[in-house]
Amino acid sequence: MKLSELGEFGLIERIQARFRTPDGVTGIGDDCAVLPQSTGRDTLVSSDMLIEGTHFLRKDIPSYDLGWKSAAVNLSDIAAMGGKPTGTFLSLALPANLDTDWIDAFMHGYADISERFGTPLLGGDTTASPDRICINVTVLGECPYARARLRSNAQKGDVICVTGSLGDSAAGLKAILKGVERDMDVQRLIDRHYRPVPRVAEGEELRLNLGVHAMMDISDGLASDLQHILDASEMDAQIDATAIPLSLALKRICAAQGWDPLALAVSGGEDYELLFTCTPQTEALLALPHFVIGRITDRAHGPARLTWRGTSSPLSPGFDHFKKGK
Amino acid sequence: MKLSELGEFGLIERIQARFRTPDGVTGIGDDCAVLPQSTGRDTLVSSDMLIEGTHFLRKDIPSYDLGWKSAAVNLSDIAAMGGKPTGTFLSLALPANLDTDWIDAFMHGYADISERFGTPLLGGDTTASPDRICINVTVLGECPYARARLRSNAQKGDVICVTGSLGDSAAGLKAILKGVERDMDVQRLIDRHYRPVPRVAEGEELRLNLGVHAMMDISDGLASDLQHILDASEMDAQIDATAIPLSLALKRICAAQGWDPLALAVSGGEDYELLFTCTPQTEALLALPHFVIGRITDRAHGPARLTWRGTSSPLSPGFDHFKKGK
Repeated sequence: MKLSELGEFGLIERIQARFRTPDGVTGIGDDCAVLPQSTGRDTLVSSDMLIEGTHFLRKDIPSYDLGWKSAAVNLSDIAAMGGKPTGTFLSLALPANLDTDWIDAFMHGYADISERFGTPLLGGDTTASPDRICINVTVLGECPYARARLRSNAQKGDVICVTGSLGDSAAGLKAILKGVERDMDVQRLIDRHYRPVPRVAEGEELRLNLGVHAMMDISDGLASDLQHILDASEMDAQIDATAIPLSLALKRICAAQGWDPLALAVSGGEDYELLFTCTPQTEALLALPHFVIGRITDRAHGPARLTWRGTSSPLSPGFDHFKKGK
Repeated sequence: MKLSELGEFGLIERIQARFRTPDGVTGIGDDCAVLPQSTGRDTLVSSDMLIEGTHFLRKDIPSYDLGWKSAAVNLSDIAAMGGKPTGTFLSLALPANLDTDWIDAFMHGYADISERFGTPLLGGDTTASPDRICINVTVLGECPYARARLRSNAQKGDVICVTGSLGDSAAGLKAILKGVERDMDVQRLIDRHYRPVPRVAEGEELRLNLGVHAMMDISDGLASDLQHILDASEMDAQIDATAIPLSLALKRICAAQGWDPLALAVSGGEDYELLFTCTPQTEALLALPHFVIGRITDRAHGPARLTWRGTSSPLSPGFDHFKKGK
């Protein structure tokens, strides 16, 4: 069998089956691993790999932005647990003929976001690649014992919320690939694709509130990511498509180009907004910006189901790295 | 300027200059980062990347062995500090047309060494690669506060020791690349190249002894790695080339093929034996297998110098990923 038939989630299941996670530890399957320490604080760890040709094209993305994004997507995993990131480890495989200016700008972007979030680079690896640039970042973080927000804790009756507009990043990517002229709107969308801002402060604020139950970041797309929460929590959900927040820039580019904003918002991914569930009482008192987009419902028979209101568009299923291109 | 002119160590210096390591933390520049915890134990972290075409050829290395080795080289970094490894994170970029049998055998090798050293796989990333397999492992470990053995602590008068024979791995690689017929000796050398055994118990035993001062693992080659200890410790050293332990298998293949065993032992790398310095009194009482190969001497003027006795062979300088092929 080829990997393309097994798929990404089949592969993860197969890997998971080979290892026993120690008692008390959250291992494979959430945004971060959660490792309790005898200090009363949990250590959070996450790792993400970016490959040239799969995740980025060298000719398109400025290397400053790539450095920024490499750290951002990892910091976002700590944010998704409600944790505080404490430091990162960077592995870089680079072709020997790469210009050092490229690397300097990459490290500049990486250093800028690291300074903004107070996360020093603590180590890593540098090595040669025959051709493609390959980047891996591991981020460490922490949060009080047993307070990390997992995907598995959505409760019946919870409202489903996101911290910001969806679809901008996917529209930015589409604009880059199609060579759309870069007016202010388009540049804004491209910036959201290249320089996402992890919702670290928002994640910590949500973690302090015990009425917030399940949380993750939107990296693969709303439909796919929410499905992970439903699977892990053994719940169903209803989403009101008309309640999904869309930016003005997204609406404008979609009107101009004839794109479907909802499809981008639901299946696009890489927004790095937080997706969380909480009680309606909690939601009514939340101070931080957020949008209610649906509700967790009791599990019907069979596998977890996500139903949509307010749309008749065909919404594509989640993204699988091995099954199709992006 | 091209990266090939800057070189690996120039690149690391440039990266390091952008980040301030927090007080009390050992960051970039040793085998692991050392992060003190309020528990009285330090957390150790290391990360290593393996790229198809740079570190391995898919047609040569059995995928079981590649899985084993991917974990082994990281566990060895924890061993090099005298730490106890506690878990790993694996990022895998794989081409979609890869056969799942390949992946199963890879994970089998990874799981076997993980079980042997009690290090569960706790997370990571799986993603698609357009062509080359790319692997990154991050390992976590721990050791008592301030007891990790750094490269910077070699003392004048220390003897320099290694825990086992050198050059086997390099000879194994050479035998693979040259297609040497695989008799028992040759297979033994190839096994040492493909399935190195990290010296975890040895590292912990050495860490318990306060007379053991500086320690690292031999990954780039004795000459290059010892130079790191000398640079970090601001010391010089004398090595007696006739004292470097060589296996019978290495001597035999070198005699048969006309290879220089000393060149392989000194410049070959990937032996993953521990290289350490300790007082002569400590050495005399060490219970674990080890070989004295030289002595730390006071720093003369200028940069750290390594002088050799007992050889007139031209010994090549250390390995640089960006400056030459291996």
